[in-house]
Amino acid sequence: MNTPANAAAQFQQQLDQVANEIESLLDRLLGPELLAGERARPARLMEAMRYASLGGGKRFRPFLVVESAALFKVPRERALLAGAALECIHCYSLVHDDLPAMDNDDLRRGRPTTHKAFDEATGILAGDGLLTLAFDIVARPETHPDPAIRSNLVLALARGSGIGGMVGGQILDLGAEGRFNGGKVQALGQSEIETLQGMKTGALLRFACTAGAILGGANATQRTALERYGAAVGEAFQIADDLLDVEGDAATVGKAIGKDAALNKGTLVTLLGITGAKERLAARVAEAEEALAPFGKDADILKAAAHFVAYRQA
Amino acid sequence: MNTPANAAAQFQQQLDQVANEIESLLDRLLGPELLAGERARPARLMEAMRYASLGGGKRFRPFLVVESAALFKVPRERALLAGAALECIHCYSLVHDDLPAMDNDDLRRGRPTTHKAFDEATGILAGDGLLTLAFDIVARPETHPDPAIRSNLVLALARGSGIGGMVGGQILDLGAEGRFNGGKVQALGQSEIETLQGMKTGALLRFACTAGAILGGANATQRTALERYGAAVGEAFQIADDLLDVEGDAATVGKAIGKDAALNKGTLVTLLGITGAKERLAARVAEAEEALAPFGKDADILKAAAHFVAYRQA
Repeated sequence: MNTPANAAAQFQQQLDQVANEIESLLDRLLGPELLAGERARPARLMEAMRYASLGGGKRFRPFLVVESAALFKVPRERALLAGAALECIHCYSLVHDDLPAMDNDDLRRGRPTTHKAFDEATGILAGDGLLTLAFDIVARPETHPDPAIRSNLVLALARGSGIGGMVGGQILDLGAEGRFNGGKVQALGQSEIETLQGMKTGALLRFACTAGAILGGANATQRTALERYGAAVGEAFQIADDLLDVEGDAATVGKAIGKDAALNKGTLVTLLGITGAKERLAARVAEAEEALAPFGKDADILKAAAHFVAYRQA
Repeated sequence: MNTPANAAAQFQQQLDQVANEIESLLDRLLGPELLAGERARPARLMEAMRYASLGGGKRFRPFLVVESAALFKVPRERALLAGAALECIHCYSLVHDDLPAMDNDDLRRGRPTTHKAFDEATGILAGDGLLTLAFDIVARPETHPDPAIRSNLVLALARGSGIGGMVGGQILDLGAEGRFNGGKVQALGQSEIETLQGMKTGALLRFACTAGAILGGANATQRTALERYGAAVGEAFQIADDLLDVEGDAATVGKAIGKDAALNKGTLVTLLGITGAKERLAARVAEAEEALAPFGKDADILKAAAHFVAYRQA
């Protein structure tokens, strides 16, 4: 019987499995082999891109791609390619966010950030290379034989990661910290915080679930269900992050906590209080589960994923 | 009769015409209207992206897209969209190259570089936004109704601008300057210089011509012809650039000259001498013209473009 405990165990096993597959796939995609149209793969660039993308991360976004695609019995290697492309976007964003001109972080996951391990110019270029590679991967025929599906993936990925998605969210976040305003922190209202977070972290999580629907040729009902699930998971992810920043244990979380408070940064936790934020978090998890109703038991692992995101300790 | 002088005049007129159309198109693409999947278009990001891409540049790359597509009677608005996407890539590369950690330039085309007019974080994000937007544009149905053609454009654009193309060429260039080597300039041989330049500047110029062939559903002969033309134009472009750096007039060129010599940078001019470089330049122009033979008179303006690139004074 598929009890919640079973689903959680199955989720963790599957998350680890996807992480291993993504690691191997990125290792191959960032290997020495030249592809059509490439003149050379410069050693330093490849080292930095590998450093920035291999050997770490839960690979939660690719997991969502793989599991949402599995609802439609999409061949796993296709979903993994789309997931690897998404992970390239995620990793590039970390490299650029860590730069001195941005968040100026020296450490990530316990090791030097890419620009510290190499140099700033190499960090900028490694990020640009990963961003470009993401679209290269998605447009390859092996990602899906139907070019209409590949084009739709490119478009959805660009929308999620560009002006109205992740990049836009990043500049809103810097603005909220007062970066363009002489350091004067902006007090954001709830809808502004929702927009900022929905762009900065939500957009790629939504794309992850939408990608499964695109790859699987989902009908409108199925696609809407996955979009709703992705949006709820994205919000849950962010509220959990904000709660960890207040309540988490630095050693477990693996990074400094209390950063939001130090920056006077508005989050749903500061706005709603811890209790209010936890209520909202529970509501988002419930919504994520409800959204999956059209898929029945097939979606149990995605339900477990929503729980994982909401109640993780790191 | 279509004399060389006529072709040159026609070329200049058409170059200006394309520049105007690209300016209007980028103005629209970077307008306030939200597209599907976008939550907001943050004001500061949009201002910086507009600053980086509007109001300047010969738009020579979009011109090549438009004129190579015209050989196949591709509707002009489609070629302009592909050209605008390519220009987004070109402009992002200038913004990132100008950053303090890269070439550290304060001025471009006589006005402050993007990171000086705004700030470094905004420059990084505006570049990321333009890079992402390029793929968004190419994947849109209005760029071409056939998704196979859109996917092919995405793939060719990613190949030309990524690891084995522009980004890779940029890191090779920094390496040649001794940037990763304590400032010890590397003496490159001819084939290394050709690889570096063929990636850093050649790859996008080749893409420009290939894009016309892809949009136009060219047959293999036609596509090979345009690829050969694009490669010859790319080399001519770079030799002319290197010659201008030695022989040009700073006021006319519009930027500092003698930069290569100051950096002890190997170019085909330092390797072959001025006379040898000019011979090679003439050979590239001849090759560009020969490559266009399959298109007969229809390609006169592209022949004029090769002359323009080779013998420009700025």
